[in-house]
Amino acid sequence: MKIVVIGAVAAGTSAAAKARRNSEEAEIKIFEMDSDISYSACGLPYYIGTEVESREQLVPRDAAFFKRKYNVDIFTRHQVLDIITAEKSIRVLNMDTGEEFNEAFDKLVIATGAEAVVPPIEGVSKSNVFVLRNVGSADRIRDFIFKNNPRKAVIVGSGFIGLEMAENLKNRGIEVAMVDMADHVMPSLDKDAAVYLEDYLRSKDIELVLNDTVAAFGGETAADKVIMKSGRALETDFIILSAGIRPNIKLAVRAGVELGTTGAIKTNTRMQTNFDYIYACGDCTESYSSITGKPLYRPLGTTANKTGRIAGDQVTGGSLEFRGILGTGIFRVFDMTVAVTGLTESEAIKEGFDVVVCHNTKPDKPGYFKGSEMVIKAVADRASGRILGAQIIGKSGVDKRIDVFATAITFGATAEDLSHLDLAYSPPFSTSKDPVIYTGMILDNDINRGRKLITAKELEEMKMRGEAISVIDARTQPQFEKSHVEDAASIPHECLRQQMDRLDKNSRIVTYCNKGVTGNAAQNILLNNGFRNVYNLSGGHENYRKQKNKSVVNVNNK
Amino acid sequence: MKIVVIGAVAAGTSAAAKARRNSEEAEIKIFEMDSDISYSACGLPYYIGTEVESREQLVPRDAAFFKRKYNVDIFTRHQVLDIITAEKSIRVLNMDTGEEFNEAFDKLVIATGAEAVVPPIEGVSKSNVFVLRNVGSADRIRDFIFKNNPRKAVIVGSGFIGLEMAENLKNRGIEVAMVDMADHVMPSLDKDAAVYLEDYLRSKDIELVLNDTVAAFGGETAADKVIMKSGRALETDFIILSAGIRPNIKLAVRAGVELGTTGAIKTNTRMQTNFDYIYACGDCTESYSSITGKPLYRPLGTTANKTGRIAGDQVTGGSLEFRGILGTGIFRVFDMTVAVTGLTESEAIKEGFDVVVCHNTKPDKPGYFKGSEMVIKAVADRASGRILGAQIIGKSGVDKRIDVFATAITFGATAEDLSHLDLAYSPPFSTSKDPVIYTGMILDNDINRGRKLITAKELEEMKMRGEAISVIDARTQPQFEKSHVEDAASIPHECLRQQMDRLDKNSRIVTYCNKGVTGNAAQNILLNNGFRNVYNLSGGHENYRKQKNKSVVNVNNK
Repeated sequence: MKIVVIGAVAAGTSAAAKARRNSEEAEIKIFEMDSDISYSACGLPYYIGTEVESREQLVPRDAAFFKRKYNVDIFTRHQVLDIITAEKSIRVLNMDTGEEFNEAFDKLVIATGAEAVVPPIEGVSKSNVFVLRNVGSADRIRDFIFKNNPRKAVIVGSGFIGLEMAENLKNRGIEVAMVDMADHVMPSLDKDAAVYLEDYLRSKDIELVLNDTVAAFGGETAADKVIMKSGRALETDFIILSAGIRPNIKLAVRAGVELGTTGAIKTNTRMQTNFDYIYACGDCTESYSSITGKPLYRPLGTTANKTGRIAGDQVTGGSLEFRGILGTGIFRVFDMTVAVTGLTESEAIKEGFDVVVCHNTKPDKPGYFKGSEMVIKAVADRASGRILGAQIIGKSGVDKRIDVFATAITFGATAEDLSHLDLAYSPPFSTSKDPVIYTGMILDNDINRGRKLITAKELEEMKMRGEAISVIDARTQPQFEKSHVEDAASIPHECLRQQMDRLDKNSRIVTYCNKGVTGNAAQNILLNNGFRNVYNLSGGHENYRKQKNKSVVNVNNK
Repeated sequence: MKIVVIGAVAAGTSAAAKARRNSEEAEIKIFEMDSDISYSACGLPYYIGTEVESREQLVPRDAAFFKRKYNVDIFTRHQVLDIITAEKSIRVLNMDTGEEFNEAFDKLVIATGAEAVVPPIEGVSKSNVFVLRNVGSADRIRDFIFKNNPRKAVIVGSGFIGLEMAENLKNRGIEVAMVDMADHVMPSLDKDAAVYLEDYLRSKDIELVLNDTVAAFGGETAADKVIMKSGRALETDFIILSAGIRPNIKLAVRAGVELGTTGAIKTNTRMQTNFDYIYACGDCTESYSSITGKPLYRPLGTTANKTGRIAGDQVTGGSLEFRGILGTGIFRVFDMTVAVTGLTESEAIKEGFDVVVCHNTKPDKPGYFKGSEMVIKAVADRASGRILGAQIIGKSGVDKRIDVFATAITFGATAEDLSHLDLAYSPPFSTSKDPVIYTGMILDNDINRGRKLITAKELEEMKMRGEAISVIDARTQPQFEKSHVEDAASIPHECLRQQMDRLDKNSRIVTYCNKGVTGNAAQNILLNNGFRNVYNLSGGHENYRKQKNKSVVNVNNK
């Protein structure tokens, strides 16, 4: 049995190691174009920012290690030119000697990864326009910064690599502007969640240029400005392209390996392609959503490790099968954490779910332990009560809550299920009602207990349509006077029991406070006094005001 | 409808607040003996240690707040003397005026909480012997320290309040000794997990006196020594009794309310007692394990909040029901975190499970992000593959992993399920294979894939029984020479493929390395070469050595 693997980063090395764990007899070879193997691509931005000090920390293993530990032969700087299915072999080029040779296999594992998308923009090949994809490209950016001491950078694209780069460049004293054609940063977030991140980025002096597309990189030999379609020009000393990545599938396609609808290699749950002796794993393959069952291309190191391991198990007779992904992701930008799992509101609506949405602002720890607030936007399915997804933004404890959500969603948890979780509490770690538990209660109260929520966007849309609606500000009079929802009436919560006669029991009423808790208390008072149609504004005035500034709540802009 | 609640800490106030959220009409009164309400009992040790600076931070709410926000009347310093079921009323004593009166109710909620166990030890009533239970008792300890500037303290009992007190006293410059009649600290951990905590406590200069019982507190007026049954005497300036808490059930018992097998008030899942109009919640009630379905008394603030909320919902016609607990707990001691959820190994064995146990030592983050190691002891059921429990000790990221375990266990996750979780990864937050995922793999490899584990204790027991067994140290020669398992042979992993002819394919073999990963690699090589009976030592030599020092692995001591 001879197993050949193409690619030696996360998936390829996982496949080879797992194959060896299962079988001593198999001959296992890996061919890799790059000179580095098994590196941490996710650590690259921090290497550029010098938080990761040395290259060796990112590339802890070499071919000799794999030979010693796994009896696996890794050939770096070897490009696979062709997969010859007719004879079950591959054509390989030794990039150092120029020599070409054929290598036969019984089973082949394609782990060719992904490459950065380089949009066909005028000037894109200028010397100071960089992409970040592997250790070599990180070295080039790092060297450029050390040698040229640039003052300004433009990052094209605001996904998480782009955002991590923004932090790391800023930490090196470089002014950063980010441009994105989307109307909000971090396209995998909903717009009303991204608003929190945008405000934060601006507070860190990151300039955001959204809703605009790059027309050209201007300048003589090196690019010195980014010219936008709008006509605006951003001066810069260099450019990072972070416009997404796409699967390396050329080799596979030429051999007749089928692609899925996302354009990545299609496999079954055993990571087998349309050729039963050819497997594929990692960033070159299509995944699928464990919520909807539909294809999904969300290349991440965690998934690459999993699918690599499964491929390695399968090629040696194992029984592991892939279960799809939630699309869980997390990143840090300065001291802010942003995390997402499952479906966003817009994705869920696209899938046809009748969604229930809440914006829950809660501290990660008690105030007396210096807790800091996070905003959880959670999405549930009204019909089943199931949690569909969560987006969380905050400075501390976000990683824990997203993992609890991811675990719960994996097992089909409903909103009510979350409220019953027995999570660990003591003051240095959490509040006695964890933010996740609280989120479950809020959604369950809407879905099953008549405490309807309304989002800022829905409220503004109703108002734009001219629907009759009474908005009650349940905060104190001074809070109301400082700023309030347009056309709202001030009835502080404490006075509501006395003053509710002012309101029509049959009219539609929206209550709100700063974050939502007192708004809910006011909603309860009204519902329990015979009012029939009362909504609590999700996330309260704080969220409303953020959305209003961003015009998320402007119906024309939805 | 008139609802009367006895007790205004976590459960009682939760019940009243929830009742009001559901109903505007109900009259709601709470009677509380203490002068403080709704305080954070879990914050008390940190108040004594001055990390929590002011009393107000622990007791943020008063009766006026509840009146204003919930229209609930709270009567502090009012002791309920009797529940008169015949006339659905309670007899109340106003502790300030001495006045007694009857208060009628339609529904009664008992939330009388728990009290510290004060063992009948000679000298226990001396003035410098303290218990910590409420804000008043915390004030007394705090005042004592401020006034007397003591140098030495003895803490009786090593549960988590005791351990949190140890940290907080130490932080105030006081020498601390802890005594416990059990053979290990933190009785809710397995002995082989507690060892890690004990080593750490000793490194912080906490003296541990285990396996010994207090005979008397010696001294003239104040206690100045703790005299142990063994004859040993510990000098001290004051004593904290932290020997557990027990439910306050006298009032309930006198009224004919039934207790459960644990001695706490028995309720159904609607928190109803044997009187259908009397409910009970919080620390005075018995809970049940959501794993075994059996009664469990594990009084915690999180459960008190949940059961209080359910009681409040039920007395106002709601449908919430209690789902039991896992017994999840966490505490910080200095910069170490200890957490537990579900069943320990010894509890699982008592329940009749055929357990699979692993000790998994992994960093919470990559080395290049200064990750620190945690030890996860996880317990699974061999028959079903289900995860039964986890115990985790480490400096960082422990709270996240225990919550993921707790969530997974709630939904009946198997070991294999854990290995498929799509958890959030980026270098500042985790490793690409999260420690929880890794734990799932290790257990799944044992349960379903022939990679058996053996614990240090099991190995020593086999050796004591004189069973034939070959122990292979797969580490490097220098590591072996420094320290190794008794009677082990050194065959470094890299040489194993060449040297395995030395071994008998039919003999029982145990492989090990430092932590377990290379031991597993060696196990794989042997199994894949036709060896039939190969075990990997769980947690490797590092865990073995810890257990050996503690004599956990001594068969006579099990």
